[in-house]
Amino acid sequence: MYKVSVVGASGYTGVELLRLLARHDGVEICNVTSRQYAGQPVSTPFPSLYGCVELDFELLDPATVAENVDVVFTAVPHQTAMGMVPDMLNAGARVVDLSADFRLADPEVYSTWYQPHTAPELLEEAVYGLPELFRPYIASARLVANPGCYPTSVALAMAPLLEESLVDPATVIIDSKSGTSGAGRSAKVGSLFCEVNEGFKAYGAPAHRHTPEIEQTLSGLAGEEMVVSFTPHLVPVNRGILSTCYASLSKEIDRTDLLSQFTDYYAAEPFVRVLPEGQLPNIAYVRGSNFCDIGVVVDPRTGRVVVVSAIDNLVKGAAGQAVQNMNLMLGLPETQGLQQAPVFP
Amino acid sequence: MYKVSVVGASGYTGVELLRLLARHDGVEICNVTSRQYAGQPVSTPFPSLYGCVELDFELLDPATVAENVDVVFTAVPHQTAMGMVPDMLNAGARVVDLSADFRLADPEVYSTWYQPHTAPELLEEAVYGLPELFRPYIASARLVANPGCYPTSVALAMAPLLEESLVDPATVIIDSKSGTSGAGRSAKVGSLFCEVNEGFKAYGAPAHRHTPEIEQTLSGLAGEEMVVSFTPHLVPVNRGILSTCYASLSKEIDRTDLLSQFTDYYAAEPFVRVLPEGQLPNIAYVRGSNFCDIGVVVDPRTGRVVVVSAIDNLVKGAAGQAVQNMNLMLGLPETQGLQQAPVFP
Amino acid sequence: MYKVSVVGASGYTGVELLRLLARHDGVEICNVTSRQYAGQPVSTPFPSLYGCVELDFELLDPATVAENVDVVFTAVPHQTAMGMVPDMLNAGARVVDLSADFRLADPEVYSTWYQPHTAPELLEEAVYGLPELFRPYIASARLVANPGCYPTSVALAMAPLLEESLVDPATVIIDSKSGTSGAGRSAKVGSLFCEVNEGFKAYGAPAHRHTPEIEQTLSGLAGEEMVVSFTPHLVPVNRGILSTCYASLSKEIDRTDLLSQFTDYYAAEPFVRVLPEGQLPNIAYVRGSNFCDIGVVVDPRTGRVVVVSAIDNLVKGAAGQAVQNMNLMLGLPETQGLQQAPVFP
Amino acid sequence: MYKVSVVGASGYTGVELLRLLARHDGVEICNVTSRQYAGQPVSTPFPSLYGCVELDFELLDPATVAENVDVVFTAVPHQTAMGMVPDMLNAGARVVDLSADFRLADPEVYSTWYQPHTAPELLEEAVYGLPELFRPYIASARLVANPGCYPTSVALAMAPLLEESLVDPATVIIDSKSGTSGAGRSAKVGSLFCEVNEGFKAYGAPAHRHTPEIEQTLSGLAGEEMVVSFTPHLVPVNRGILSTCYASLSKEIDRTDLLSQFTDYYAAEPFVRVLPEGQLPNIAYVRGSNFCDIGVVVDPRTGRVVVVSAIDNLVKGAAGQAVQNMNLMLGLPETQGLQQAPVFP
Repeated sequence: MYKVSVVGASGYTGVELLRLLARHDGVEICNVTSRQYAGQPVSTPFPSLYGCVELDFELLDPATVAENVDVVFTAVPHQTAMGMVPDMLNAGARVVDLSADFRLADPEVYSTWYQPHTAPELLEEAVYGLPELFRPYIASARLVANPGCYPTSVALAMAPLLEESLVDPATVIIDSKSGTSGAGRSAKVGSLFCEVNEGFKAYGAPAHRHTPEIEQTLSGLAGEEMVVSFTPHLVPVNRGILSTCYASLSKEIDRTDLLSQFTDYYAAEPFVRVLPEGQLPNIAYVRGSNFCDIGVVVDPRTGRVVVVSAIDNLVKGAAGQAVQNMNLMLGLPETQGLQQAPVFP
Repeated sequence: MYKVSVVGASGYTGVELLRLLARHDGVEICNVTSRQYAGQPVSTPFPSLYGCVELDFELLDPATVAENVDVVFTAVPHQTAMGMVPDMLNAGARVVDLSADFRLADPEVYSTWYQPHTAPELLEEAVYGLPELFRPYIASARLVANPGCYPTSVALAMAPLLEESLVDPATVIIDSKSGTSGAGRSAKVGSLFCEVNEGFKAYGAPAHRHTPEIEQTLSGLAGEEMVVSFTPHLVPVNRGILSTCYASLSKEIDRTDLLSQFTDYYAAEPFVRVLPEGQLPNIAYVRGSNFCDIGVVVDPRTGRVVVVSAIDNLVKGAAGQAVQNMNLMLGLPETQGLQQAPVFP
Repeated sequence: MYKVSVVGASGYTGVELLRLLARHDGVEICNVTSRQYAGQPVSTPFPSLYGCVELDFELLDPATVAENVDVVFTAVPHQTAMGMVPDMLNAGARVVDLSADFRLADPEVYSTWYQPHTAPELLEEAVYGLPELFRPYIASARLVANPGCYPTSVALAMAPLLEESLVDPATVIIDSKSGTSGAGRSAKVGSLFCEVNEGFKAYGAPAHRHTPEIEQTLSGLAGEEMVVSFTPHLVPVNRGILSTCYASLSKEIDRTDLLSQFTDYYAAEPFVRVLPEGQLPNIAYVRGSNFCDIGVVVDPRTGRVVVVSAIDNLVKGAAGQAVQNMNLMLGLPETQGLQQAPVFP
Repeated sequence: MYKVSVVGASGYTGVELLRLLARHDGVEICNVTSRQYAGQPVSTPFPSLYGCVELDFELLDPATVAENVDVVFTAVPHQTAMGMVPDMLNAGARVVDLSADFRLADPEVYSTWYQPHTAPELLEEAVYGLPELFRPYIASARLVANPGCYPTSVALAMAPLLEESLVDPATVIIDSKSGTSGAGRSAKVGSLFCEVNEGFKAYGAPAHRHTPEIEQTLSGLAGEEMVVSFTPHLVPVNRGILSTCYASLSKEIDRTDLLSQFTDYYAAEPFVRVLPEGQLPNIAYVRGSNFCDIGVVVDPRTGRVVVVSAIDNLVKGAAGQAVQNMNLMLGLPETQGLQQAPVFP
């Protein structure tokens, strides 16, 4: 039994980590920390876990939480993470960080989109934890930067196209739609039920902070610097991200052949489901699961391809992918604890 | 590995059974039947199960589907079930029937609320599959009548009160609220998104067909014939039933003592969570799980007790309870395949 | 053109008042106050009103806001209202108060459920603004206490029964369900989209603060002191309250006759729609309108009547009823500015 | 008082027309037809209109329905409309057709996307009823083709850009999202609450039937043949369309200047609200109203402009625009009967 801790478990990513880890056969949750709920049972703010997670929230310093633990999950805001991860690594734990702090390789880019980085020396060491693209590097990593939810959905949608140079990198437009849990669990008027329900809006355009993370991964796949249009939208559902990705084809290719590219590319992946011809993904069909569903459309009239991907933002887009990374780091089967079938309806 | 079949797997109860059985270590799904989808992969109408259930829907007669199978789940409409269950039992299978056909012990009562019964000889043999109340009879049953969703939520809420004669049976009023999956997956205008969403209504009053089933169980607990007011309502959510049950206390008792009655009554039950004082259930906290959450309120001003229970109507209210019954029938651990923590949010 | 002011217009009741008043031919909005948004255009927090209400929020003392204005609407929290209403009345304005501060006639009852009352001398003068029951007193009132949303739905459902002594007052049980706008627009975790959506819960039992207001009105109708069970629930919709009211019939009466009682009782009312036999209300059918829909069920098995009423909590349950009261006070047609047909779907 | 008829009033567009016309001072509804509901009161399938529309559905032939009526609204499926409109015009009525049958000027294009046209001689006469672009032609038209919901949202978003040649027409990509009422009121499994709720998907790509209608209008504005990428998505809300439109700028222009282009372009329009800098539309803020809200973003990194527009698909996208057209045809004030402020929340 490996030992793990969850730091900052008071948000939706935190509770989702606890849901998955509580039923994971290979690990034991040792500490659960939260500044806000310290001293209270986990089930007080999260009655769903009553009888499933019998721990109390604690208030622990980074070194203590990391002591005698194999993996620490840091589910804290950016800037907070970079302040605690070095101490955790020094205490001998390995870390899966779910914040944005270690995702961007270049500290200059980070400081442009966020604020100055206080642990830039770790950026080179940190491994970007998207197993489908970077699996070999994850197993041995001390520090895994768990990808953002939008970037996960986009990278998996675009990888087969960019790696094979099937599209013109200058033409990529990404229109993403996220469920509301992506906005977090802090009390803001804009996240109130009545503000979100029966609504739909774009936000963050033209410079959402996930843009550089998306561009970093896509650029690596394309082998050239890419700049993309990325517009996120808010969907009145709890969970799910659907990304609709547009690009101009660099050569003529029909839908069947293009679909084969995707099917072959992901043939061995347990968590990527390339849908049969004529089917497009729906976030309803991945809910609660670690799947990424992908559908492909070719439009001969415009010469463009449209790739649509769907994930559960809290699972493949956050906690599930973090567990997948943990499994790789600990040498456990990659799918352990992640085999729930999607909950539909 | 035991072998099971699911008959009539094209509705929401059917797909939920497949979701649970697909990840159950102790059983193998052998046949999945559907008149509507015969010949198609399960994942065509249910893309959520793509890669999880690799079977095609078949069109099989009852004897064939039951052959060489340990347990058959019949998830078909009432009246259809009674036409096929006898053949299945004769073919040597044991049956968990999710319809209403074998829930009422008295064929007269059945014919009053439904239509004449064509297999009344099986009513005596059939065991009402509410494990928390009838566990000893389930293990050896050939035919288990899986309880209705509303009756499950009501029976678990009222059992500790009625068995201990803490309330006046003549005063019981049950106000229940169900998610929309309870209305089934058939194409009706009344179940369209735009008809249900942002709405809330009572329906079926004063004579919803679950009334006699509720009264049968409560009467057995009370040791006297009971007649109850039961009003179901439709909630614009996919899953969940919340029942608010009112009764006049037959003696003075405070909330703490009453809560202890509940806590003691369900102390050994893996799937009933009696909530701490001051907490009331929310269907959001049982979603996707087999839990029944119960909260208790005493109102000294009126001398009434209010018991609120919450279940996922597709799990503890249907497919989960069916798997729980199957586990008992097959001698498997009762919780096997049912330990998912609730999916929140 | 009469002149009106809206005080505390930053919540959902406030914005609904502005929506209705902006399109009311007989009045002009002079001041809109909000501590939180003072100095900003109304359309900044409420983009729905962009181009409809061209005013800025102000921060005004009660006397100033009431000066040269015919009617002031106070849409502020209880306790805040009682601090400003006396000054407004002294400044010569008439007031429709949407808080709870002037609804309870007895200051002792008020202090039991809220806190001590600082303007008890106004309680006798204040008129309870439910036009269907108290119309004659409203026209000449200086101060109208606009009823609560739950109490409105319950009083209209029960009035024909209690006034005619058709039910036993000791048996009244009220199970109410409210949309989420009833919880207000303040930033609380419990009102976040992901906490409410796909959930359903009871709350406030057994002592929600609307209980004494309900009991005051019903007692007046029954001509005797009544104590009722009242359990509110939270529905994941923006708008609407549905109350399911149970009572034992004091004599035998069939559904048709009982329905006639309701039809006759409300024959002249423009905003009460008693539904035809066999139909029950749905909050979806009153959305955005000032209607109260009522359906009646008699259950001969239990000897109980079930009355179901539906209103839009922000219209007939708050802002619409306030405008209805204003119309009566100003001698305008009672329905002026309130004739929008419900917005369905 | 002008006289109007609504043909095919059993769908969501029909009931919305009735909602608006019932409260329109200048017209009287004479006939309401529906094959499905003939003989029943309008309020049977649409209880929201109980007491608002006191008519029964009838089954009338086109000539009869058009007799002695000033304007007929045809809210029937495409192909059905073209079969009845000629008879109505011959009977002397003017027609606002809400189907797709008279929107495309070229019968060849129509037959490519739909089926052969049986009244091609009317295509030249028919006026495309988007008042903001074609107002002068509408007043005198006998036959107005009411625009589709998606095309309305796109045309208003793109007109100021294309007319001023500010973008490269070859780069236009439109990512639209529609509420579920757009799928109609017919009983289909795919429109059931549980299939749509908590879901989000793309559909119809790459060849949704609104594509040629969009291209026809945009081509006219650009003065050259345009081919666009258009991907519609389904949002789990009742009402609303949000279109996110991407195009490469043909010259450098900053956000402020671009916004001025839009503000100037729509300065005199009563139903188009160009939002202040930094604000983007939300369908929640136009609900129930005839407004089209528009927000503009310039991304200097990519050289692209993103225009986001929001309408209520049943109002500005269907029934409201039809009433706007009727007002123009009858010489009534264009805004009559359409001045409701949006219903938020």
